[in-house]
Formats: sequence, structure tokens, C-alpha cells
Amino acid sequence: MPIYTAPVKDMQFVLHDVLNVTASSIPGYDELEADFTSAIFEEAGKLTSELLAPLNTVGDKEGCRLENGVVYTPTGFKDAFAKVKEGGWPGLDMPEQYGGQNMPYIIGTAVGEMFSAANQAFTMYQGLTHGAASAILAHGSDAQKDMFLPNMVSCEWTGTMNLTEPHCGTDLGMMRTKASPQADGSFKITGQKIFISSGEHDMADNIIHLVLAKIEGGPEGIKGVSLFIVPKFIVKEDGSLGERNGVSVGSIEDKMGIHGNSTCVMNYDGATGYLLGEEHKGMRAMFTMMNEARLGVGVQGLSQAAAAYENALAYAKDRLQGRAVTGTENPNGPADPLIVHPDIRRSLMDQKSFVEGARAFVLWGASLIDAAHRSGDKDADGLVSLMTPVIKGFLTDVGYDMTVKAQQVYGGHGYIEEWGMSQFTRDARIAMIYEGANGVQALDLVGRKLAQDGGKHVMAFFDLIKTFIKESAGQDAEFDATYLDPLKAASKDLQSAGMYFMQNGMKNPNNALAGSTDFMHMFGHVCLGYMWAKMGLAAKKALADGTSDAEFYETKLATGRYYMARQLPATALHLTRIQSGADTVMALDAANF
Amino acid sequence: MPIYTAPVKDMQFVLHDVLNVTASSIPGYDELEADFTSAIFEEAGKLTSELLAPLNTVGDKEGCRLENGVVYTPTGFKDAFAKVKEGGWPGLDMPEQYGGQNMPYIIGTAVGEMFSAANQAFTMYQGLTHGAASAILAHGSDAQKDMFLPNMVSCEWTGTMNLTEPHCGTDLGMMRTKASPQADGSFKITGQKIFISSGEHDMADNIIHLVLAKIEGGPEGIKGVSLFIVPKFIVKEDGSLGERNGVSVGSIEDKMGIHGNSTCVMNYDGATGYLLGEEHKGMRAMFTMMNEARLGVGVQGLSQAAAAYENALAYAKDRLQGRAVTGTENPNGPADPLIVHPDIRRSLMDQKSFVEGARAFVLWGASLIDAAHRSGDKDADGLVSLMTPVIKGFLTDVGYDMTVKAQQVYGGHGYIEEWGMSQFTRDARIAMIYEGANGVQALDLVGRKLAQDGGKHVMAFFDLIKTFIKESAGQDAEFDATYLDPLKAASKDLQSAGMYFMQNGMKNPNNALAGSTDFMHMFGHVCLGYMWAKMGLAAKKALADGTSDAEFYETKLATGRYYMARQLPATALHLTRIQSGADTVMALDAANF
Repeated sequence: MPIYTAPVKDMQFVLHDVLNVTASSIPGYDELEADFTSAIFEEAGKLTSELLAPLNTVGDKEGCRLENGVVYTPTGFKDAFAKVKEGGWPGLDMPEQYGGQNMPYIIGTAVGEMFSAANQAFTMYQGLTHGAASAILAHGSDAQKDMFLPNMVSCEWTGTMNLTEPHCGTDLGMMRTKASPQADGSFKITGQKIFISSGEHDMADNIIHLVLAKIEGGPEGIKGVSLFIVPKFIVKEDGSLGERNGVSVGSIEDKMGIHGNSTCVMNYDGATGYLLGEEHKGMRAMFTMMNEARLGVGVQGLSQAAAAYENALAYAKDRLQGRAVTGTENPNGPADPLIVHPDIRRSLMDQKSFVEGARAFVLWGASLIDAAHRSGDKDADGLVSLMTPVIKGFLTDVGYDMTVKAQQVYGGHGYIEEWGMSQFTRDARIAMIYEGANGVQALDLVGRKLAQDGGKHVMAFFDLIKTFIKESAGQDAEFDATYLDPLKAASKDLQSAGMYFMQNGMKNPNNALAGSTDFMHMFGHVCLGYMWAKMGLAAKKALADGTSDAEFYETKLATGRYYMARQLPATALHLTRIQSGADTVMALDAANF
Repeated sequence: MPIYTAPVKDMQFVLHDVLNVTASSIPGYDELEADFTSAIFEEAGKLTSELLAPLNTVGDKEGCRLENGVVYTPTGFKDAFAKVKEGGWPGLDMPEQYGGQNMPYIIGTAVGEMFSAANQAFTMYQGLTHGAASAILAHGSDAQKDMFLPNMVSCEWTGTMNLTEPHCGTDLGMMRTKASPQADGSFKITGQKIFISSGEHDMADNIIHLVLAKIEGGPEGIKGVSLFIVPKFIVKEDGSLGERNGVSVGSIEDKMGIHGNSTCVMNYDGATGYLLGEEHKGMRAMFTMMNEARLGVGVQGLSQAAAAYENALAYAKDRLQGRAVTGTENPNGPADPLIVHPDIRRSLMDQKSFVEGARAFVLWGASLIDAAHRSGDKDADGLVSLMTPVIKGFLTDVGYDMTVKAQQVYGGHGYIEEWGMSQFTRDARIAMIYEGANGVQALDLVGRKLAQDGGKHVMAFFDLIKTFIKESAGQDAEFDATYLDPLKAASKDLQSAGMYFMQNGMKNPNNALAGSTDFMHMFGHVCLGYMWAKMGLAAKKALADGTSDAEFYETKLATGRYYMARQLPATALHLTRIQSGADTVMALDAANF
């Protein structure tokens, strides 16, 4: 069975050596002293390693079970959920007013990585609740907030998001779920929603569904979509639970992975719903939830890669097979461990350099969200909005690839469910799909975010990299050559791609869209390259300052050099593809495929 | 449920337009007239589409069941196996002497793609039998051939290959299974083997296990390994079945995919075995089987990609979602089909250009095997030996990626087992692992095959490409620019990588091995680029000759241009990685990971 160890030291490095959080002016960051964050991370690490990780394979094997309308979660989930609630983890970064601990989002994100890595299917129950609570927080009336948030922040009640219908996922304008206005101001919701994560289960007293539906008589298409709060049990004025609402689970989907999460078909049959936010502005309200969810899904990509890598590494050190080509390294054993072999090393370094780079990337992203929310920093908001599709799309695409590489280290054992490596890939696979399939993320990036606010945010991004390189260069020729030059080249590739889109996308938008996924990946590489350069600098500083943990920082520098030499140059290939334009992509008539 | 349509037209194109088989001097090729091969392919296509494909999801859902030592295959497998035997398919390319049809291997390979695409788990029962029969054919005594081959060629009896033990897979020198010589010349085999595909089942009267074991008192390590024939039931002198041998199934592995194939733990408890080939030369004998198996596994990579692509394409044409950015294409529908979107196109073109290129590649490889076996062509033998790890490693790595892309086209539905797209990825995943994990293929290519016979075969490969480009260039500037220039550049990259290995691998072999997987992928791209250039030329010729099917050939040309513009340039990235050497790969001590 796979193990899980929370990367406490690595997170501390990013927060304190790289992002230098306590020096930040973001409200609340001054409290994030190293001892304090370390205590939280250690505690979360213990919980995730000891409680959640052992339930991961249980959830995979047992799955969820639907009997007479009741969904039973896998053995142990309910008890574990109680312990998670008891520890106050769900409300870590939620407002104190509703029972949360009001910590910065960066802390929630770090802890979120641990939870997801230990047990993604389990963590989704609270993750969806967090997203639904955020949407109510942003768009609900005071009465709605008071009615729903305290129990959602504590996870006494959980939440869901209901977008997809059988005939429409991305294109929500086609949705058929209807909302009929009632005399008391509520609505009757009728329709079917599919792929509803945590849609029904036995771990909470109530489930608060956020449901997109069209108010009868409203505008056609996406402009007629509104968002509704539909509780499983009607909440009475005094806060107690009333009658069962007209929402029921139709079936549990049989999925490739995340078996421990109940992905449901939900039927709304004249269910009572309350408008959340404005009429016909449902997409805007839903996007509050979606943006947070997309970052969370990016973290899932990282987290599955991290957990899979930890196990692959342990196996590579333990499994004896063959001899090092440069001379026996384990003379007393029947063979050398796998890790002596260069191709295994390559795979492990791919994984390690991705995982650590991605971790820095999401924590940086979370710090920008904190700056936006806590300091009202509009530039930070614009920048993280630009990078959200990259965090989601790139980290889940590559995160998935890394779970496949981790599985490969196990050879045949990787294919046997008993070893647990298959589950990492099967669970990681969903993250490329939900909350907007990665092709949609690429479209969002290239078709919308690049040009947002007149292209201001992407220009700011390039300036950031340029300034960083300028300020960091010239002190250490080796660092310049191994870190800054590759970053400069990659950043230049990305700019050239943006330039190509501008010059060729006008006359034919397909020239931009045919390169959208390549662009998203380039962008991700540049972000990770930037993170590695920042980590490299931080490591150099720690070494210069005479750290007592030189090995840790030397390892950081070596890992960064690997990323720069072996991964970052992928931008050139992406650029070549982008610059080949749409002609070869769109050449065929559909009938000729 | 997924559909399957055999690519008869495409195979005919490769055989007749590209490889021009009837003009070949290989014995038996003169009979391969277009009408003849078309009749075979149509018949195989019918069988695979109508009989095997519908059983694919059945096999996945039901899996195999072990009860009291008996393994039950999924519903319908037994009947289907009977029909396959009845049609004589298992012996298609086996010698007439033993009941086969003696067709060239190229025909067996084409039909093999169809079988694997329709139902990989099912096809493995006959695939392993074919491999075991080939080993007996190559290394068995006349008595052994007479005793086993007729029933194996017909698949009345099936075969297995037993290499792996719990503590050793790649490093077979560590194996513990023992063979004790008996007075009658037979051996008693004792030990445990794992991951034995088709190890036990209910579809054949007898199962002929080929088992690697160490004869007691023999040399240590790999030099003491011999190969044995261990039948499930002892075969009596008169050919009838005698007593049950001391071999039994310990358990069925719970795998990520290919559930319809019984992957068994096999226990040998003093089982009677007969030496196949020479004492202590077991690896050599096994490699007869392995090389064939590796080609077959490469075909699996292609076949899963082909089947997944067919379904993704159908879904992309059918599923309405969003509108084309360049203007509505389906004004009477609520939305346009997915296929209008450039990023979906990109994915479909990736798949299509890989599948068709890979198909040509394996058929070319099969023709080289025919040249080697039927004409004794040593150059062909050397070339295909060089390319075998590429066919296995590259086609299964990329084939798997393509099944993931196909699954992605389905969005959320791709993750739901009901739609069948998950199975393609889960089934395809094993091909990267078994018959030598792909890292081992890369090692075989770079560490052994490149230098084989003084590097003669790789030089021949480069000459082949160079001559082809020289002979094809200068007639059509557009073809030169879109096909030949990219091929030339990619081939140059591959040569540069080989040069780097020569110059740097001597002083440190890690410099070569750290780039082995990248080299294998470059090599694969150059092979597919070469195939596309040959297909492009053939298409141009057909068009010039005034074909009545211009659309087919124009589509070929457009698809090839896509591969050349968007896929082949990957060689530059691989070269960059290779030329970065082993330093960053091997920098860390194992303890510092």
C-alpha cells in the first residue's frame, strides 16, 4: 500500500526562503512565522499520513454504494470526516464570522495539497463544500450567509456544484433545467444534472446544492442562466432541518477513478431553490466557485504527482534489479537498486523537478489571491486570473504524466492494483477533465485572458520575468548560464508565441486557437522555470548565509538545474508548433477524417 | 459502447501503394494481390467488428474468475475463441506443416492489429500461443514440434511465457525457479512465476507453458538459465492427454486493465518439464519469443490508439457543443459539433497522423521480418532488430498518450466506464510495461542495438533515409518543403544524437543512457516521418496517375503534412535533452532525492 509523507520542509522553504511571507504587506501574512506554519503543516501532515492516506485504497476498492436513495461512502470515511471536522480543517481559510480560522489562502492551499495527495476522493467532499461556501460568501444575501455558511464552514453540511447536463457540459447555454418563480420568492427547480461530485452521501446532515438553471421566460442561452441554492433538507427559520427537498440521486457513476467520491446523477423534481446573486447572472456567480475550483484542481494535479513520486522513489531505492553500468553500487546485494540506472533517474528527476516547481507555483498563485482578496491588489488579481487556466491545465496535464512515470518505475507491479500506483493515475486523470476540460482552459487563456484589460496582465507577467532576470544576473556566471539563460530563452519563446497570435489571430482566429494547448504548456513551463530560478536564488542565499542544512539547498540547486536543462527547453517545440499555424490543423473537411 | 471498424482501406494503401508488396522478391509476396489481401482483411474486419469488439467491454467488466483452481474467462470468450479457431486465424502465418496457412508475417501483423484493436485482452490468448509456438518452432526437436505445434497452431492448446518472479523481472539472472534433471531426460520444475498472461483459463484443452528455470548445479546468474516446456496436461506418446502436471494457478492478478485476460501467479511444484533448446541457453530461446512479442506489443500500442481514435472521431462529429469561432457551421442545430474547434482538431490530427504513420511503420517492420525469414536477408534482419525496441517502446508510449487524448475528447463522459474510453487507456497502459518495460527497450536500443555489428545497421538506416530524400527531392518544391525538409532535419537530429553518444558515452556511459528514452522517441519520430514521406509520395503518384479516389489521397497528403509540421519537430527537443548529458540527471546522491 502506498505511503504518504507531507512535504513540510519543502513548503516551509517556499513560504519562508522563496516567498518570504512574513515580510509581505498582505494582511495576515505577518502572522505566518516559520514556527507557526510549521506547526500547522506538521499537524496536517500527521492527519493526512496517518488517517487519510490509509483510506485512499479502501475508497478505491470499495467505492460508494447507492441503496434505496441513500449513498454509503467507503468504510472509514465517515469517521475520518468527523475527525477532519473536529480539527477545524475545512474552515482553515474561511472567515471567523462563520466559524472559520481566517488564515490566508496560501495556508489553505498548502494544506489542500496534503489532503488531496493523501486521498483525493475523500478531500473532494470538503473541497466542493469550500467552493460552494465561497460562492455564497461572495454572492449570497446576509440571510443566506447566516443560514448556510456556519454549517458549511464546519462541514456539518457539505456542498456541491451542479452545472453539467447529459447533453451539455462546456456549452452551458444549452441547459434545460428550469426554475419556476414561486409567490414566496423561491423557485421550483426541475431538471437533471450529471457528474455531481459528492452529490449524495452519508457524512453530513445536509447537502447544499448550488444549481444552475434557467428561469422560465428569461433570455435564451447562457444569458438566461441563474444560480440557485437547493438544500437537500429545507432549512427552517430557526436553523433546524425541515422537510426533504425534491432532489434525489438517480445513480452513482461508474468511473475510472476517485471511486471514494460519490459522483451522482441528480434529479431535481420541483425542488425548492433560492436565487443566489442576481437573476440571469448565474455564470458570474458560478465562476467565483469555478476559479477557486480550478486552482484546487491544479493542486490535485500536483498532489497526485507528489504522492506517486514519493512511492516511486521509495520503490526505486528498495527494488534490486540489474547493476549500475558504471560499476556495482551494492556489492553485498544480489543486484543494485533501480535508482542507479540513468533512465530511472531521468524519470525520478522529471517527477521531482515538476513536483517541487509546481508546488512553488501554486503557492505563489495562492499568495497572489491573498494579495487580491486581502489587500485589494488589482494587479495581483489580474495576474492570477491570467495564470488560473495555466495552473489548472498545465499542472493537471503534466501531473497526470508524472503519475504515469511513477507507475512505470514499478514495472509490472505498477499495473497491479494491489500496489496502488494505478490509482494515482486513475485519480489524477479526472483533473484534466473536470472544472473545464484542459482544452477549455487553453481556450480561456488564449481566447480571453491574454487580451483581458488590453493585454495588461500578460505584459505584466513578461515584465516580472524580465525584471527578475535583470536583477538576478551578473553575480554568478554559473547560475546565469544554468538558470537565467534558459529562463530568458523560454520566456522569449513565449513572447514570440504571443506575438504570433497577435499577428495571425486577427485574420484567422484559428491560428491562435490551434496553438492554444501548446501555449498553455509553454506558459506553464515558463512559470515553473521562473519558480525554479527563484528557488535557486533562495538556495544560493541560504548557502551563502552559512545554512546548517547545505545538503537540502544543494539538492534544490541541482534539481532546478535539471528542470532548466531538460524540461524548460520544451518551449521551443511548442513555439514551432504554434508558428506552423492552423493550416495543417484545419486542412481536412470533417467528412475526410 | 465503443465501435470498431477495421482499417482495411488504409492497410491496402500501405501494402499496395506504399510497400508495393507484389513487386517484392520475398517468397510468398507475389501472391499478395490486392484482391487477395482485401478479402482477408475484410473477413478479419468482419470478425473483429462483429464478434470481438462487442466482447471487449464485457471482458473489462467481468474479468476472469478463479474457482477451485479453475479460471473462467468472461461470458462469450469461449464461444468467440471457438469461432476464431474455426476460421483458422491463429495459424495464419504459421507453417503449413503444422496446420498453418503459411502466409507472410505482414498479413499476420495487419490482422493482428485488427484483433488487438477490437479486443486486446482476448487476443492475448492466441498471441502468447503464437509466440510460444514460434519458440518451439525455432528451438524444439522434431519430436517436440510434432508433439506440440499442430495443436498450438490451431489454438486447441494455448501457450504462455513464464519469466518474471516476485523479486525479479528485468534482471532474470536472479531467478530462483529450479529444474532438477530426471533419469528419463526430463526435469522437475519448482518455483513461482508471476504476471503470467493467459496462465490458466477454460478455453483450451491444454496449456503449454514455456518456463525459464535454472538447472541445479548450473552456472550462476543469467548464464544458468534454461527454457522448458511444461504442459498443463502431460501429452502421451499417441498425442492424447495424460495426467495433470504439477503446475497450478495461485491467483489471478487484479490489474488496471486487460481484465479479460487471466494474468496468473503460477506455481510449479515438481512439474515435469522438457528442455527446449540447449541447456543454459534459455535466454536465447526465450528471445525468439520476446522479439516477436515485442513487435506484437508495439502493434498493441498502435491498435489501442486506432480504436480509441475511431471512437473519439465519431464523438467529435456527433457531440454538439459550442460554436466555431470562424462562424456557425451547424445553423440548424443548437450548437456545432466538437470537431469544428481547433483544439479538438489538433487532438484528432495528433491521433490520426500517429495511427496511420504507426500502421505503415509496423507493416514495414513486418516486411523486413519476412525478408529476413523468407529470403534470408541479413540486412533486413539487422535493420528490424535495430528497430524492434523502437516499435515496442515508441509505439506503446505514444499509443498510450493517444488513447488519453481520445478519452479527453469525450470530456466527462471519457471518465465514465460506460463509454468505454477509459478501457482503451487502461488496456493500452500495460503495453508500456510488459515484454520489457520501455526503459529497457531504450537501453536495448542505445546500449546494444546501436553498436551491433559495428554500428552497421544504424548506418544502413541513415543511408536509407538519405537515399530516399535524395531520390525524392527536386520534383515538387511544396513536397520538398513540407515533407522532405522536415524529415531531413529530424534525421540530422537523430544522427547528431548518435554522434553525441559516441563522443561522450565512451568516457561515461551514463551520457548515453541518460538520453536513451529521448533517443528511442527521436528514432520513432524519424521512422514515422520516413513512413509519412513514403506515403506522401505514394499519394502523389496515385493522384498523378488519375485515381478515382482523389479525396483519400489528398487526405493522406494533408495528414502527413500535419505530422511533419507538428510532430516530427519533437526531435529537436529530444536532441537538446540528450546533449545536456548525464550531469543533471545523475547529480544527486540517492539519499538526497
